[in-house]
Amino acid sequence: MGNSERFQKGAAVIKKLFGREPQPGSMQADFLDITVENLFGDIWTRPGLAIEERSMITLSALTVLGRENEIKIHLHGAKNLGIPREKIEEIMIHLAHYGGWPVAVSGLKLVEQVYSK
Amino acid sequence: MGNSERFQKGAAVIKKLFGREPQPGSMQADFLDITVENLFGDIWTRPGLAIEERSMITLSALTVLGRENEIKIHLHGAKNLGIPREKIEEIMIHLAHYGGWPVAVSGLKLVEQVYSK
Amino acid sequence: MGNSERFQKGAAVIKKLFGREPQPGSMQADFLDITVENLFGDIWTRPGLAIEERSMITLSALTVLGRENEIKIHLHGAKNLGIPREKIEEIMIHLAHYGGWPVAVSGLKLVEQVYSK
Amino acid sequence: MGNSERFQKGAAVIKKLFGREPQPGSMQADFLDITVENLFGDIWTRPGLAIEERSMITLSALTVLGRENEIKIHLHGAKNLGIPREKIEEIMIHLAHYGGWPVAVSGLKLVEQVYSK
Amino acid sequence: MGNSERFQKGAAVIKKLFGREPQPGSMQADFLDITVENLFGDIWTRPGLAIEERSMITLSALTVLGRENEIKIHLHGAKNLGIPREKIEEIMIHLAHYGGWPVAVSGLKLVEQVYSK
Amino acid sequence: MGNSERFQKGAAVIKKLFGREPQPGSMQADFLDITVENLFGDIWTRPGLAIEERSMITLSALTVLGRENEIKIHLHGAKNLGIPREKIEEIMIHLAHYGGWPVAVSGLKLVEQVYSK
Repeated sequence: MGNSERFQKGAAVIKKLFGREPQPGSMQADFLDITVENLFGDIWTRPGLAIEERSMITLSALTVLGRENEIKIHLHGAKNLGIPREKIEEIMIHLAHYGGWPVAVSGLKLVEQVYSK
Repeated sequence: MGNSERFQKGAAVIKKLFGREPQPGSMQADFLDITVENLFGDIWTRPGLAIEERSMITLSALTVLGRENEIKIHLHGAKNLGIPREKIEEIMIHLAHYGGWPVAVSGLKLVEQVYSK
Repeated sequence: MGNSERFQKGAAVIKKLFGREPQPGSMQADFLDITVENLFGDIWTRPGLAIEERSMITLSALTVLGRENEIKIHLHGAKNLGIPREKIEEIMIHLAHYGGWPVAVSGLKLVEQVYSK
Repeated sequence: MGNSERFQKGAAVIKKLFGREPQPGSMQADFLDITVENLFGDIWTRPGLAIEERSMITLSALTVLGRENEIKIHLHGAKNLGIPREKIEEIMIHLAHYGGWPVAVSGLKLVEQVYSK
Repeated sequence: MGNSERFQKGAAVIKKLFGREPQPGSMQADFLDITVENLFGDIWTRPGLAIEERSMITLSALTVLGRENEIKIHLHGAKNLGIPREKIEEIMIHLAHYGGWPVAVSGLKLVEQVYSK
Repeated sequence: MGNSERFQKGAAVIKKLFGREPQPGSMQADFLDITVENLFGDIWTRPGLAIEERSMITLSALTVLGRENEIKIHLHGAKNLGIPREKIEEIMIHLAHYGGWPVAVSGLKLVEQVYSK
């Protein structure tokens, strides 16, 4: 795993968002480095949006695209950041009207799974 | 056009968001009523999210879905609400990584069109 | 749960389509009300399309969007309305050409699951 | 252009649906043959769905997928088959709730363009 | 099942790609015939692209569309053709940037499942 | 504009693919840097796929996603790399069956626009 400054910055965001270090073996090795450096290190650390805003925007995108595995991961992130369940549910009720009812039905089930634990 | 309480509530949100009344003739008549009553009257007026948050969430959804006509409309809304251009651009740069590069390329062009006027 | 006239109208469509009352606890409480009132009460009760036509159109949309959980729910609805399996299969064979082969492959598997019981 | 029996069958459906023969030069030559033979000759001629049902199902799929060029083509087909404007509009109002509001907004604009001529 | 020349051509491609004959009962009977004749017999046998190229292009499409069941099937095909795991992984890392990060995360997990056996 | 090593590597790929330098003003300034460094510098330069393979894979993804503006840009790239028109057309005919007919119809029109000049 990378040790670059960009990797360290990305790992710090991942720690803050998900409460854990990047996990070797959790995905293909090169893609893990790219994810930590390029996505979390370069993008999530940019000023202009608070991490809570990035979390909500990411969930909005994932919800209307129907990416259920990643919705779950980012719901854990949102919960970890202290974003209230009611706020996330409200986002999904809102998005039923922009991505279609089914994406909200699925999204709200995942909220129940992640937040009720 | 409807005169129900729900319609009046919806029309008030539309006024606040887009700076104008619902426009008869702008879309099929029944669908205009449903849009004002059900979408803006029932949903956009719910507590739990500020109108600026609903604007950003809506733009996030539209951007990754590539709905260009509606992106333009809601960029006018975001500008009208006073959301800074830099914040919207940051959302789109972020979303390049969740919806694919092309949705950000298109979204940022529309920001230029709407905000530079 | 709501007791409004719109809720009652929606509940009646749901009974006709799925053979059961709206189920409290089946989804987030506010979203259940909105689903019964706005989606089933306001939209599914509109004249201009028979309920069987709405069922087939809904299945067409869900199929090409790949929304598998909702496809299953609406296949139960179609079966309950007496729409023959052969007709639903024909829709999916047709849609392979508009939404891509994979959506029909998945859709036809779900038909087998729901209709063969 | 093909002269096979499958081509002839496909050409007959195209004539019935769009009121014209397949047009050489309207698309890449091989793809035109495949479209006439495989899509219209093999699929649109299958029993089990009336041509009006295939038209409505096709429009439902194209609408939620946001394929605007093809929506226009198939709106001409629907009009040519005598499907009333009100019925197509009702389909799109319905689909706003399954594919998201923007697909209905765009779809209804195209109905206005095609049916008001 | 069909015995036409087109069926035989399609069955030969399926054998080469997946290492087995078309399997009656694996999908709805008519759709199996159409899949063997129209998709594999007519399209996959066309000159202009090697079967390995068709395999990689198909996987690219399925990956960005998020069609997980079909990705698995075509990963078995790719493996059977001898396309190296590293090449498929590289395709998915690349596509993270065109279809969004989640499609690559899911795709790479499926590569691990299929290629590590 | 950036002057980093990653930027230089990305600019070299862009030159090879599109026949020109990255163009300041062609997109939002930060996003141009990220595009050159992260997408072209880090990803397109990775070993494991030839640039012609990356071009075809990118076109496959863009085609099934219906991203027309970017399809045009990457068709110029494909033409510039010397990939024959027939090969690109074959990809789109193939993809009609995985992303639905409309994406191939649109894609083939864009091929005509870009390659016939």
